[in-house]
Amino acid sequence: MAPKYLEDLSPGDTFGGERHAVERDEMIEFARKWDPRPIHVDDEAGRAAGFGCAIASGAYTTAIFTRLALASREADGGHAVIAGLGATMSLPRPVRANDELEFRAEIVEVRPSKSRPDAGVVRMRARLVDQNGETVYESTTATLVSRRPKA
Amino acid sequence: MAPKYLEDLSPGDTFGGERHAVERDEMIEFARKWDPRPIHVDDEAGRAAGFGCAIASGAYTTAIFTRLALASREADGGHAVIAGLGATMSLPRPVRANDELEFRAEIVEVRPSKSRPDAGVVRMRARLVDQNGETVYESTTATLVSRRPKA
Repeated sequence: MAPKYLEDLSPGDTFGGERHAVERDEMIEFARKWDPRPIHVDDEAGRAAGFGCAIASGAYTTAIFTRLALASREADGGHAVIAGLGATMSLPRPVRANDELEFRAEIVEVRPSKSRPDAGVVRMRARLVDQNGETVYESTTATLVSRRPKA
Repeated sequence: MAPKYLEDLSPGDTFGGERHAVERDEMIEFARKWDPRPIHVDDEAGRAAGFGCAIASGAYTTAIFTRLALASREADGGHAVIAGLGATMSLPRPVRANDELEFRAEIVEVRPSKSRPDAGVVRMRARLVDQNGETVYESTTATLVSRRPKA
């Protein structure tokens, strides 16, 4: 599949369906290294905080999101991304071991770049949804994408 | 040190100084698992893209940021955080193996919560700065922080 250039992307385009099953060992190991707060590594601390068990670090959920977003772009043939320009993210609900997270995304804006005539800015709203249909991660990303090179 | 409550935090308060040295193996291993794009795992691909070598995945830089932010909060005695409410982040410059990243943060807003009389919202602007003084990661986070419990 050929990569998608700016001209191939439109507001309303949707992507997704890629999934990641949260394994307890992976979730805890990640938190031990990068975010060793008690609620991320210890079920008892998660219970005391009202979550019922340990919950995932936001950095771990971000890593899952990154992997699924990449898989989704690759499934779509790849986008001609020059650079990431920034992102917002929120974690509206906790992620727990054995959750199954699905990536869903929609392009919300495609516009010319002010500084680069060979490229444009694509804004995408994306999220991870758990097995109950609840959104656990929401993100809006802006990326700089090449226009199709002239033949 | 006692945890800091909402009343203990003020706009203009600064934190930081914590550091993480980016090790090549750690950077590449993280990307292989979570963001295996060629520019994140292969020096040749990084060179072809104009970066001189492989560059870090944004998810890896986010993980470093998370760890240093936690270390910084702990060094400050811990804040009485109830929940993270969201964040914006951007990656204005690439991170490479052997970079040394330093965490710096400033509180920019402290306000009462509209829905929770026992808590307030703290907005913090934080970044990672490399050994050349360049900002490689910028973030604004909003967290819900407890007021001091009444005696």
